[in-house]
Amino acid sequence: MQKVYLAGPDVFLPDAIAAGRRKKELCAEFGFEGLYPFDNEISPTASGERVDRLIYRANERMIRRADFGIFNLTPFQGPSADVGTVFELGMLAGLGKRVFGYTNVTDDLLDRCQRFGKLTFDPVEKVWRDSAGMSFEDFGNADNLMIDNSLTEHGGYPIVRHQALAGELFRDLTGFKACLRLAAEAISKTA
Amino acid sequence: MQKVYLAGPDVFLPDAIAAGRRKKELCAEFGFEGLYPFDNEISPTASGERVDRLIYRANERMIRRADFGIFNLTPFQGPSADVGTVFELGMLAGLGKRVFGYTNVTDDLLDRCQRFGKLTFDPVEKVWRDSAGMSFEDFGNADNLMIDNSLTEHGGYPIVRHQALAGELFRDLTGFKACLRLAAEAISKTA
Repeated sequence: MQKVYLAGPDVFLPDAIAAGRRKKELCAEFGFEGLYPFDNEISPTASGERVDRLIYRANERMIRRADFGIFNLTPFQGPSADVGTVFELGMLAGLGKRVFGYTNVTDDLLDRCQRFGKLTFDPVEKVWRDSAGMSFEDFGNADNLMIDNSLTEHGGYPIVRHQALAGELFRDLTGFKACLRLAAEAISKTA
Repeated sequence: MQKVYLAGPDVFLPDAIAAGRRKKELCAEFGFEGLYPFDNEISPTASGERVDRLIYRANERMIRRADFGIFNLTPFQGPSADVGTVFELGMLAGLGKRVFGYTNVTDDLLDRCQRFGKLTFDPVEKVWRDSAGMSFEDFGNADNLMIDNSLTEHGGYPIVRHQALAGELFRDLTGFKACLRLAAEAISKTA
């Protein structure tokens, strides 16, 4: 049975464990075993090791055990995806494993950056810049080019964009289910 | 000569190429060869392949060639580090290469999240939450636990925190130089 690492800001939901359970049930419907970070129950140990370090180690071990990953790349705390999720995306891609991703907003990164901070157009270099002069990508991507392109290069499909209702931003599983279908398709092609 | 991948939002500076050249000069002073993403000169090709995809591929190739990495993890466009940089951090850590990092602000992630959006304390679960109920880590880290701990696990040193002047946030190289010293120390130990 193929093991899929389930990454996303879902771990910050008030009912994070139930949210993970729901994703694992959906994985099982596709014949996959879902690996969810909250399966790593970490409690302070007699060793006195920091809890956050133990969580890191457990997550990395889980990533290395996984056959592929599905990433919830919905913007979180700013115009881009959750950085913890993005770190894990880089790790799976580096390990040469398949990665699939979805976002629960449909707009481009640049549109969100425009709203996040005032950008002005630099007519010489033909780029948008913020007040500090930092330039912004304009490739029509959902997020930073490393994110969008890692999915096409290492999974074979672009990011799935779906507009969730405001209250369902971190709960809507439409894009997640689409990723499960893409993963099943990709795996069946190489089986 | 050890090759070091130079990651950070420096690539978005108006004088990104000069900024990379300066970093490469500092690397040379330590006997390292700096690899900077802008060394990959990408121009649209007759193949019609997307430029952002060509940049992705060139960066990934460069990461795989590198022996270790130094990451500018200064918050960018939100309370956390630049997501492109974080993706690359995950990739190098996944590849088992050494990673060193610095940030040009000294405060904790939680402090920045407090300023970014109003958080309230949940006395039952003993966590801070935003208006959507999403919880926030409180480990005293500079950023998401995956970031801080990847540095200690895969580089052997915590993130270097240094408070830059406002106008020097993406230019101050104090932390970068500290990372070069740490890398030299780590490599000499295993030489």
